Amino acid sequence: MAQDFNPSSLFQMAENSRRKKVDIKDKFITLAHGSGGKATHQLVEGLFLEYLRNPILEKLEDQAVFSISHQVNKTNSVNKLDSLRFAFTTDSFVVNPIFFPGGDIGKLAIYGTINDLAMSGAKPLYLSAAFIIEEGFLVEDLKKIVQSMQIAAQKAQIQIVTGDTKVVEKGSVDKLFINTSGIGLIESNVQISSTLAQAGDKVIVSGTIGDHGTTIMIARGELELEADIKSDTAPLNFLVQDIINEVTSLGKLNSLHCLRDPTRGGIATTLNEIALSSNVYIEVYQNNIPIQEEVNGACEILGLDPLYVANEGKLIAIVSSDVAEQVLERIKKNPLGQNASIIGEVKSTPSAIVAMVTSFGGSRIVDMLVGDQLPRIC
Amino acid sequence: MAQDFNPSSLFQMAENSRRKKVDIKDKFITLAHGSGGKATHQLVEGLFLEYLRNPILEKLEDQAVFSISHQVNKTNSVNKLDSLRFAFTTDSFVVNPIFFPGGDIGKLAIYGTINDLAMSGAKPLYLSAAFIIEEGFLVEDLKKIVQSMQIAAQKAQIQIVTGDTKVVEKGSVDKLFINTSGIGLIESNVQISSTLAQAGDKVIVSGTIGDHGTTIMIARGELELEADIKSDTAPLNFLVQDIINEVTSLGKLNSLHCLRDPTRGGIATTLNEIALSSNVYIEVYQNNIPIQEEVNGACEILGLDPLYVANEGKLIAIVSSDVAEQVLERIKKNPLGQNASIIGEVKSTPSAIVAMVTSFGGSRIVDMLVGDQLPRIC
Repeated sequence: MAQDFNPSSLFQMAENSRRKKVDIKDKFITLAHGSGGKATHQLVEGLFLEYLRNPILEKLEDQAVFSISHQVNKTNSVNKLDSLRFAFTTDSFVVNPIFFPGGDIGKLAIYGTINDLAMSGAKPLYLSAAFIIEEGFLVEDLKKIVQSMQIAAQKAQIQIVTGDTKVVEKGSVDKLFINTSGIGLIESNVQISSTLAQAGDKVIVSGTIGDHGTTIMIARGELELEADIKSDTAPLNFLVQDIINEVTSLGKLNSLHCLRDPTRGGIATTLNEIALSSNVYIEVYQNNIPIQEEVNGACEILGLDPLYVANEGKLIAIVSSDVAEQVLERIKKNPLGQNASIIGEVKSTPSAIVAMVTSFGGSRIVDMLVGDQLPRIC
Repeated sequence: MAQDFNPSSLFQMAENSRRKKVDIKDKFITLAHGSGGKATHQLVEGLFLEYLRNPILEKLEDQAVFSISHQVNKTNSVNKLDSLRFAFTTDSFVVNPIFFPGGDIGKLAIYGTINDLAMSGAKPLYLSAAFIIEEGFLVEDLKKIVQSMQIAAQKAQIQIVTGDTKVVEKGSVDKLFINTSGIGLIESNVQISSTLAQAGDKVIVSGTIGDHGTTIMIARGELELEADIKSDTAPLNFLVQDIINEVTSLGKLNSLHCLRDPTRGGIATTLNEIALSSNVYIEVYQNNIPIQEEVNGACEILGLDPLYVANEGKLIAIVSSDVAEQVLERIKKNPLGQNASIIGEVKSTPSAIVAMVTSFGGSRIVDMLVGDQLPRIC
């Protein structure tokens, strides 16, 4: 995926290929359309957005943000309009296997949706949970998964308030799929968006990359590889609150520009999305990217590039350089952010491009994920 | 399912069997757990609620209703707390086949979720849409379904603001499943709940029953039966608004007690849920229940009891007798309510029971659905 990087003509080629009107020419849906990478973008922009377009959806963030207005002070006949700002998100979980080191499909579903809400600066409030279960599924396994969801919900301080259960015939679904949707309230005046990265900003990652995806690949047992790795699935809402508190206390709420959890497609895909949305160049330094030795080793054996491997309990924050060190220190104080690191910076050109300065001092374009190296990772 | 009805001891037996602490003793999940009937209730109360219990979830309505408070008038240092009342719901759609007379899985997903919101008296605002697609699915079919969702969303005046796409390997899901979750705002002071049916109330159904379920069964082609029937899938939010407007204009907002869309398990299951939640006896009159002749005929051939067959564009309203006629007339003015009828009334005892006075003047207990006569109906 990473190409040798050299002349600016290469940048131009990459940019041109991305700026084309998105059209979906495929006749059949392939696993690549679910990868979170290029094919997913083509499907989303060329099909879903084509029909369902509206100002909120077309932002293509991991959550919708909208305000709901209502009349207050009716008794005083003031009829003043007040509004609340909400985040709303949905995710279906089809991870295989459903139990894996560090978690299970239920825990993943709770934290995955909480994290999508948190990345808008919202405080997650309420979640829904919808189960599609294969006939013959063990009730005991369902109990384990629902109990795991309960523990996760308590840990993240949210409530599951509504649900749905469908059962389909044996062979019509692989064991169990869970959808969680969620609502959060954005209490501060924070403005976070993938479109807001600016030249001069710093890129922070909150911890080691590739843990979740590598764990799942090993848990499938296809390679009989054993490694002491577990999924990093975790609720990031309190870490986000720490970051917001930090920039607030610095009087620089507007210095927090982007927050994303780099799940499917890994940090490479997330950074590409930001580079594209903000029309900036993002340069990362390989030496600064935290990665566990075991994960690195397993990725080599599995033939995976850790930049493209899914994370579940990590976030990328892009902030103004003047607050970067303080935000980094604050993140590091949170147990989920101990290994945080400033991994790169934002520049203005060549726009819509991500490149990595390698350990050897070279530089390579880090493109969006093509194909799907890791189906059913979440 | 309907048993011969005679002495009060039968009532007592039925009541005793329902009042037992719900426990799930099954070792494996069966299709009955997805039927919306008795086994679903055991699964929901004995497992999901056991772990995830909280005051909102345990109401077990088709949607969660909650208030979100926030500070207003901060500039005047008044710090008054104002609150908004929301409805939130989720539904996964696994209908087979995905295209059927009168609709498709996309249209069903939009209207199904809108209707669950509307039944709380909420104005549906925003929907999410999450797709789980089988590898190899035709892009052309996906386009048709998403276009159908677009048309449905426009018709119901809501927006799809966030989404998710997963693709799984061929054989891991049967073609396409869609989850839609939604948020609505409850603007009036209406208080609607399955717990609020009272002796003296009238039971209104907004139109013919059994259309959707019968259509799906025929569309599966297993019986080579042809009939001029189509699914009644439709958005009920404007019809609900009509009802609220009517009781508001009568100055009797509190006379609207229950609203439910009788989907899985049909009107029999919905009425049983209300009878149980409100601890009342509900008596319906077979002669008053609107049903299309073709549906009745098809049900006979298919061996189905139309009382248990799913509807998608119908609602049951339970209102005080003093407003029943006016509400009925208002419903009939809406194209979706032309065939509305008062089908029964609420009495106090024997509590938690539904019975039907048959065309022949007899009376039968109408119990909750046992087993699943119609898997994957929605």
